[in-house]
Amino acid sequence: MEDAVTIPLDAETKAAERPGDHKAELRLWLRLLTCTTLIEGEIRRRLRDTFDVTLPRFDLMAQLDKTPSGMTLGELSSRMMVSNGNVTGLVERLVSDGLIDRRPAPKDRRAQIVSLTAEGRRTFRAIARTHEAWIAEIFESLSSSDTETLMRMLAKTKTSAGNAIRSEKSR
Amino acid sequence: MEDAVTIPLDAETKAAERPGDHKAELRLWLRLLTCTTLIEGEIRRRLRDTFDVTLPRFDLMAQLDKTPSGMTLGELSSRMMVSNGNVTGLVERLVSDGLIDRRPAPKDRRAQIVSLTAEGRRTFRAIARTHEAWIAEIFESLSSSDTETLMRMLAKTKTSAGNAIRSEKSR
Repeated sequence: MEDAVTIPLDAETKAAERPGDHKAELRLWLRLLTCTTLIEGEIRRRLRDTFDVTLPRFDLMAQLDKTPSGMTLGELSSRMMVSNGNVTGLVERLVSDGLIDRRPAPKDRRAQIVSLTAEGRRTFRAIARTHEAWIAEIFESLSSSDTETLMRMLAKTKTSAGNAIRSEKSR
Repeated sequence: MEDAVTIPLDAETKAAERPGDHKAELRLWLRLLTCTTLIEGEIRRRLRDTFDVTLPRFDLMAQLDKTPSGMTLGELSSRMMVSNGNVTGLVERLVSDGLIDRRPAPKDRRAQIVSLTAEGRRTFRAIARTHEAWIAEIFESLSSSDTETLMRMLAKTKTSAGNAIRSEKSR
């Protein structure tokens, strides 16, 4: 077994080392992906139809709302929940709409700190209140015990995936 | 309560009708999104690094592998698990790589049926075997009882979200 630690294994070898049927895990992953895609699509549609706002724009404002002192573009990119290749473009538009402010970082004037304006905060919070009600509606059939169980199982999943990612990177 | 059925409610009103704290559901949604994003990002990275294949390309081949008789571009788009605006472009490249075939539909010659070639099927199945082992590794810390619990909770979530989506559309 020491070999497995010292000799990097390619994916095919690893696949061969995990013989047997992994259909249960594959079905689980596809169900997890289906649920997320279904809910994300619905939230995306409602944000657009109700507030004329895209999901990445809402997500960006949500990250800034959590950090009143603001953050750099790099921090902002790494915190966003939905992938978006163009944080700079989103920021440009939010600045020109008066919803966010941009200023040089005090310690590194080449970096820029962005934060919500008062109007940006008001706008975000109005949308966020409705967004929260949508999420409650979407999960309505789950009891609070179901919610707790699902939270616990997803925490395990996150830890398990994190371990797989770290062990892959250290190979 | 009859009013709620006959008068369409806007999102703000609905939000006001669900008073109280929905932070638990919001945390659950963010955790679900985090898990999916984490795993999807890792699978995307491994597919690229190991097989030089994109996730949408793998997903497209997976859908065709399930339906040996092939399907139209429209069916293919609706079945894909990961969103991709450009199914037509993916199909073009897979045809020119010899991995899929394209022919006119027997009943509607304006529609086209695409299916895997023998080489496409071989290529897909080799990747799929490794992909399945990755998924098993990612969910490795979950016991089979955890997996069953999570499957059941995600089935409830899917039903619950489906109900919310249908009731929104009928409003």
